[in-house]
Amino acid sequence: MLPGLMQTAPLQISQILSFASTAHGGRAIVSRAVDEPIWRYDWAGCEARSRQLANMLRSMGVAAGDRVTSLAWNTHRHLELFFAVPGMGAVLHTANPRLSDEQIAYTINHAGSRVLLFEKSFVDLIDRLRPHLTNIEHFVLLTSADNLATTSFEAAGYEALIAVEPATFDWPVFDENSAAFLCYTSGTTGDPKGALYSHRSVVLHAMAGGLNGALGLSAFDVVMPCSSLYHATAWGLPFIAAINGCKLVLPADRMDAAGLDELIRDEGVTCSGGVPTIWTMYLAHLERTGGNTGALRTLTIGGSAVPRAMAESFQQRHGVAVRQLWGMTETSPIGVVATPTPLLAAEGDEAMDEVIWTRQGRMQFGIELRIVDEDGKPLPHDGETSGNLMVRGPWVIARYFRHEEPATDADGWFDTGDIATIDRFGFMRITDRAKDVIKSGGEWISSIDLENIASACPGVRIAAVVGLYHPKWEERPLLLIEPHEGEVVTPEQILAFLEPRILRWWMPDAVVIAPVPLTATGKIDKKLIRDRYRDHLT
Amino acid sequence: MLPGLMQTAPLQISQILSFASTAHGGRAIVSRAVDEPIWRYDWAGCEARSRQLANMLRSMGVAAGDRVTSLAWNTHRHLELFFAVPGMGAVLHTANPRLSDEQIAYTINHAGSRVLLFEKSFVDLIDRLRPHLTNIEHFVLLTSADNLATTSFEAAGYEALIAVEPATFDWPVFDENSAAFLCYTSGTTGDPKGALYSHRSVVLHAMAGGLNGALGLSAFDVVMPCSSLYHATAWGLPFIAAINGCKLVLPADRMDAAGLDELIRDEGVTCSGGVPTIWTMYLAHLERTGGNTGALRTLTIGGSAVPRAMAESFQQRHGVAVRQLWGMTETSPIGVVATPTPLLAAEGDEAMDEVIWTRQGRMQFGIELRIVDEDGKPLPHDGETSGNLMVRGPWVIARYFRHEEPATDADGWFDTGDIATIDRFGFMRITDRAKDVIKSGGEWISSIDLENIASACPGVRIAAVVGLYHPKWEERPLLLIEPHEGEVVTPEQILAFLEPRILRWWMPDAVVIAPVPLTATGKIDKKLIRDRYRDHLT
Repeated sequence: MLPGLMQTAPLQISQILSFASTAHGGRAIVSRAVDEPIWRYDWAGCEARSRQLANMLRSMGVAAGDRVTSLAWNTHRHLELFFAVPGMGAVLHTANPRLSDEQIAYTINHAGSRVLLFEKSFVDLIDRLRPHLTNIEHFVLLTSADNLATTSFEAAGYEALIAVEPATFDWPVFDENSAAFLCYTSGTTGDPKGALYSHRSVVLHAMAGGLNGALGLSAFDVVMPCSSLYHATAWGLPFIAAINGCKLVLPADRMDAAGLDELIRDEGVTCSGGVPTIWTMYLAHLERTGGNTGALRTLTIGGSAVPRAMAESFQQRHGVAVRQLWGMTETSPIGVVATPTPLLAAEGDEAMDEVIWTRQGRMQFGIELRIVDEDGKPLPHDGETSGNLMVRGPWVIARYFRHEEPATDADGWFDTGDIATIDRFGFMRITDRAKDVIKSGGEWISSIDLENIASACPGVRIAAVVGLYHPKWEERPLLLIEPHEGEVVTPEQILAFLEPRILRWWMPDAVVIAPVPLTATGKIDKKLIRDRYRDHLT
Repeated sequence: MLPGLMQTAPLQISQILSFASTAHGGRAIVSRAVDEPIWRYDWAGCEARSRQLANMLRSMGVAAGDRVTSLAWNTHRHLELFFAVPGMGAVLHTANPRLSDEQIAYTINHAGSRVLLFEKSFVDLIDRLRPHLTNIEHFVLLTSADNLATTSFEAAGYEALIAVEPATFDWPVFDENSAAFLCYTSGTTGDPKGALYSHRSVVLHAMAGGLNGALGLSAFDVVMPCSSLYHATAWGLPFIAAINGCKLVLPADRMDAAGLDELIRDEGVTCSGGVPTIWTMYLAHLERTGGNTGALRTLTIGGSAVPRAMAESFQQRHGVAVRQLWGMTETSPIGVVATPTPLLAAEGDEAMDEVIWTRQGRMQFGIELRIVDEDGKPLPHDGETSGNLMVRGPWVIARYFRHEEPATDADGWFDTGDIATIDRFGFMRITDRAKDVIKSGGEWISSIDLENIASACPGVRIAAVVGLYHPKWEERPLLLIEPHEGEVVTPEQILAFLEPRILRWWMPDAVVIAPVPLTATGKIDKKLIRDRYRDHLT
């Protein structure tokens, strides 16, 4: 090869902050904070305080490569950690407060963090965990309070600590493949596994995420991340917003409908997103109050499948476009986003809505996607054939933290554990989790499809389908139904509703009316359901 | 540092084509061709033919790192060279037919190219150059013609050559810093200098170029590059279009008003751009014919300052936004693009238009910009202070091809040779070329500002200002005026027009009415003017 002669300076997260601070310095950042009034500053202010924070961490002895843990909401202080910790060459472990005590302690110890910064909401949690946290040398409470009498243990106050530090700090330059963030998966089996994002992966992900085929943000947008900063960096939104000069609105932990409604209207939010649940509640709130969506134009929804009725209502009643996004901690997390294309639009509005509302997303530049059969053979993109979904690209994991073996196959493909179809327009639809698919008599039954149809039955709040051992067919579906409060549904009603809507051999062998157990992240706990009903069909 | 654990596969130009072909395979590409009907295919078709082309070049013995020269217009075959040559690991030298015979031969020999592919328009040129081209082993005429009797020398026909090749070719994977394109500057002094773009620089430039703060393209856009593919890869538009799934329209060499008008309306062009001249002609054509701009929404103009009247007419009469872009071969070429921001918009429409129409652009993510004084000390971004414009970033040159010394200072800053101001909103305005600025009695006079004002004088077609040696003031301005055809202007009229509009000490010491000489690329040839009038003031 002939070497090119362009500059090869490394991609660094500090460049994102410096750009926002220089080119969009006066663009606002607004944040709720725990037990404090709403905080307002701008990108220039954010860089100044991030530099103070970097000096503070250096004073504590934090060095390049060291890990620092946050237990924090979507707040301006957490945002400062997002820039200061990787900016100085250290690694931010964003601990997930939704995990069990044991799992939180496990991740902090596994990370080997030396400093733990946490919101007031987590004082009791930290008090419980403290005896088990072997490496933490400094506890810092993310507060402006002078009086930290709320903690029974020795902790310093964030504002007091950074106030004494200068706002000058030269962001160091280092290898772009250096670690920046450590995000643990909330796997339902085994210990959480850590994805160790690099500066290169974060910067490339942020550049691609702003494109119009993905989130499509501009300097005129006001972005409110309602995915948690501790969940795969809230889809990289702090970085995508900074690169595009957006105003940023941070709701802390106030994801309730009234709290969102207030920020959306008061701050002129144009783009938000997160899991479907909070937006279903917001929509109900609007109907109850007769409210409006202000300047809101797009909601990007991920984490679970989007209820079609919600997407339809947002579009038809409020002119708000709902876009699905699919990804996982291992993909930084943006994998695909369901944005329209002219080839799809040419099929007509109805056909387009159908695709946009029912597909998890469309191929993005940077992420290669393919579906393969059990032998790893690529399958056609016909929208019909389903197979194991594999991804590859510069923001996909190569290896879990402290694991010896790679997380991918020899060609770099990461097996997502999802079963999906891909159509000729590049749209991807998840038909099941590989471990949830039901293998009946050599054929596959999609638990997700069955759940979606059963959920539409009047009176049903949640429907969960698992495959149970069956002596003749290998596996057969069991359908668990949790009715809306105060409503009564019977297995016979459910079966009668399903009958005209599904293939005969998809009919569940049993329908049980009972509460549906959820995991710490609000997903259906299929492992528990399978354990609980193990012998139900035999 | 702690190494991150994300994938580190190199960024490659072939990924751009494969993405467009997979995710937007059916999106159209339409191209004029020399003496052939309009060509139509799509991104999938483009990848298939690019693979055939790669096989053809391999059959000719082209290996990784080898140079291949194109002398071609904005056509589909040139587009295929853009993907196939770097895709296979070789380097595409896009020769500039606007240079002199000697300079073209110099660049081809300096590149050390083994294959030369050229349009029918250049048969005579090649015939003249042939005895001087020391390395070329294969001449290929970019034509579908079976009969190549038009050439007096042995050349093969492109279509016949690729027709026999298979459309399967595995794009190799290699270091992302490998060379991809070799683009020579058309410097007015000395030999042309080669900028050697890498795969990394091209891919990062293309990702950033699509963002809404830059060109802001989406899959619904129809992009017609009217900057030449041989000028710094036409601003990377082929790559930006592919990443965003745009329809691409290629006008070959038909940049005349009627030719553009036809493509804009017939193909639904939404975004185009190029040098101001062609768009001034297009606007005059619309007025003459009473035509409309169809779906056109944005014209991005670079290469010379945008005439304010043109920008205003496009916006007010046709609803087409005109955006300035500044860059150079050494910056790949996107440096800054004048896109609005909410902070600027808050100043009011008039103030915003003023900035957008008179600034060369606004800071983009990826390119650092600063102005420094003669000692290299950074100057404030106050919109008033002007200084030497320096740039740095992953698509800025590090060293010219076959030069020993770096093209930048020790910190990686490249001196653009422009004098500029930067304002608090990040907008940059070129006030002069460093070598054109007039140093009078210790103060600077901007030749560009003087020219802009003199150009507005009735009857003036082109105004050119140079600084000439003056025994007392060091330098004083000479103003050369070329009137519109058939119009008469006198030096006295010019001076009377200038008097109320400029500082007293800016008044030119001499006004000469004469044709203004232009360079090969249509810029005012100030070197020639300075030579011609050297002793005019003494």
